[in-house]
Amino acid sequence: MSRIGIIGAGHGVFGRRSDATVQELAFEAFRAALEDGGIDRDRLDATVIAAVPEYHKQRSVAGVVQEYLNLNPRPTWLTEVACASGSAAIRTAWMAIQSGLHKVVAVIGCQKMTELSTPEILALMGRVGEVQWESVFGTTFPGYYAMFATRHMHEYGTTREQLLEVAVKNHHYGSMNPNALFKKEITMDKALASDPVASPFCVYDCCANADGAACLILADEDTATSVAGDRTVWLDGVGCATSSMSVLRRPELTGLPSAQHASKTAYEMAGVTARDIDVAEVHDCFTIAEIMAYEDLGFCAKGDGGPFISDKRSYIGGDVAVNVDGGLKAKGHPIGATGVSMAYEIVNQLRSESGDRQVPDAEVGLTHNVGGIGQYTFVHVFKRS
Amino acid sequence: MSRIGIIGAGHGVFGRRSDATVQELAFEAFRAALEDGGIDRDRLDATVIAAVPEYHKQRSVAGVVQEYLNLNPRPTWLTEVACASGSAAIRTAWMAIQSGLHKVVAVIGCQKMTELSTPEILALMGRVGEVQWESVFGTTFPGYYAMFATRHMHEYGTTREQLLEVAVKNHHYGSMNPNALFKKEITMDKALASDPVASPFCVYDCCANADGAACLILADEDTATSVAGDRTVWLDGVGCATSSMSVLRRPELTGLPSAQHASKTAYEMAGVTARDIDVAEVHDCFTIAEIMAYEDLGFCAKGDGGPFISDKRSYIGGDVAVNVDGGLKAKGHPIGATGVSMAYEIVNQLRSESGDRQVPDAEVGLTHNVGGIGQYTFVHVFKRS
Repeated sequence: MSRIGIIGAGHGVFGRRSDATVQELAFEAFRAALEDGGIDRDRLDATVIAAVPEYHKQRSVAGVVQEYLNLNPRPTWLTEVACASGSAAIRTAWMAIQSGLHKVVAVIGCQKMTELSTPEILALMGRVGEVQWESVFGTTFPGYYAMFATRHMHEYGTTREQLLEVAVKNHHYGSMNPNALFKKEITMDKALASDPVASPFCVYDCCANADGAACLILADEDTATSVAGDRTVWLDGVGCATSSMSVLRRPELTGLPSAQHASKTAYEMAGVTARDIDVAEVHDCFTIAEIMAYEDLGFCAKGDGGPFISDKRSYIGGDVAVNVDGGLKAKGHPIGATGVSMAYEIVNQLRSESGDRQVPDAEVGLTHNVGGIGQYTFVHVFKRS
Repeated sequence: MSRIGIIGAGHGVFGRRSDATVQELAFEAFRAALEDGGIDRDRLDATVIAAVPEYHKQRSVAGVVQEYLNLNPRPTWLTEVACASGSAAIRTAWMAIQSGLHKVVAVIGCQKMTELSTPEILALMGRVGEVQWESVFGTTFPGYYAMFATRHMHEYGTTREQLLEVAVKNHHYGSMNPNALFKKEITMDKALASDPVASPFCVYDCCANADGAACLILADEDTATSVAGDRTVWLDGVGCATSSMSVLRRPELTGLPSAQHASKTAYEMAGVTARDIDVAEVHDCFTIAEIMAYEDLGFCAKGDGGPFISDKRSYIGGDVAVNVDGGLKAKGHPIGATGVSMAYEIVNQLRSESGDRQVPDAEVGLTHNVGGIGQYTFVHVFKRS
């Protein structure tokens, strides 16, 4: 197998973007990626679009974006696996190039979530849980993850403060990210005092919906070397796995089997272990999700996720720097864009272009992107050289 | 490049399937494909699901199907490009195998459309047209294609009867297809007398929504040869192209630029020309669409699509047998399933297993699957040997 490289990366501002349609958001990130890589649009063979279609009044998102970027008649198609759609698109682009079908492919994750009212969004999200036996009884996303948290606290003694230490960390790094929705530090006292959402969660345990887009441009090994040279970041492991959608049928509630399987695949493919990861973007849709990710990815032993954050082992300077762009928590979570945004951060980190948030000597990076309540997880491993 | 083979194909009954959920529809087709190929489920590495998510109350369709088929923790992901979603999934599976990432991949197209009311479906479909400048003024799918028909009649003298001859043919073959929604012949007089929809279209110019599913199992060359032997059908050309979504910005209204580009790509990749195609499944969402497809695919010259059907050149025994399973018109159009259903028919034809509807000595087959109003077209070329 030859290597697939990332030769351009772009990112727009996440937030309530009433100034832009979904195709305009896509364009911002796309233009930034072309400029970043010094790539002429004519070099592109195809695009893969990541979005969850039903949040947009305009459907057929791939077609709309392709036209707006003036890329007709090139191929495009959309991937959807709930909040992991962006990583599915990256994995698909990897396959498209590795197969020899295309040489240069742009992946654009884009999502406009604020066109809909909050009740409309809640109704849609509930449908990503199991509608026959579960969400019909009122389980929402915070409700599902609150159950995971309650069980983790019961089994491993994880504390309320440890959960919120994830939020404190991610807001700390988010305050340094110009693309983040919340660019502000928070204190533990403030977090503990915030309004309840679903016990044990309060507001600061939960990420926020946002509009936004991010773009990566991938290329085959020869093209990457000639276009981006040493600035190429290599995508060497693309792991994907699934768990039952119904949590009633899960073997455990304190971790995601899909994440455990996907990371194993990605590590093997890239020839690395958890210890090799210098910087990681993990799916912190709720604070417990980041703690579960530490364990599922092998950054610490099962049950040790609470102490792992308390001891600041996931800060820059710790064992592995996690979510140093603010994560979903502070950066915001435009669902189709999130996986691509994660990869954007890792690419910049491995190029040593992350400024104040730079992880020193980052050689190997990882993204961990969960769809739904863990029915899908995509884990990708990136290398600097 | 090595070849990718189809080693199993399955199909459920299309229609108003109030007896089955979307995952149950998927299971019917999946089981049929496993039985058809004599394949153990454990051989599968991954699935690609095709569906347009927003027609289902249960979202995250890929995850639901994967769990119901007992395929966790294997990878799955969903492709969406409106009515061409099934072909995008097949093309993605082709890439997954060609890339070396997977050896055996099941593609399942599944769609439950009758959960929603007709007004809800019309509202959703309208959003697949351009919502800012077009569908907001009332253009629906029949309206768009009626414009194409009107222009074709004006420019090339295509007649009302020629349009409906497509419907007469497709109902003729549909009457022989046990999986078709409408298993009945129609006469020209009956078709001409049917209720108007959007001038010049009447009811019999339009395909019908349906519930349904179809499944293909693809494998790498070695696996295909060992599992399916001479019964393997080879997918040798996977073409995809896009046109502007807005018809206001199209260079013409009498053909689909995306179809012209996609067929060129697929022919070149497979090393064939239009003359080599023995049997084709084309996207006859409206009668004019099949006539445009004859021309866009090069089965006849531009403007000659009307006489092409009048002269029965698209019947079995003519130049190329088109939609001899009934097409979208008589078989029904469960949007996510349609592309896979088309491929199912071609696979059976190339295996000489199509019974009464068999095209004699079919060696090369083609599918032409259009998304939306032509913003995407996927053209795939299949060979018997």
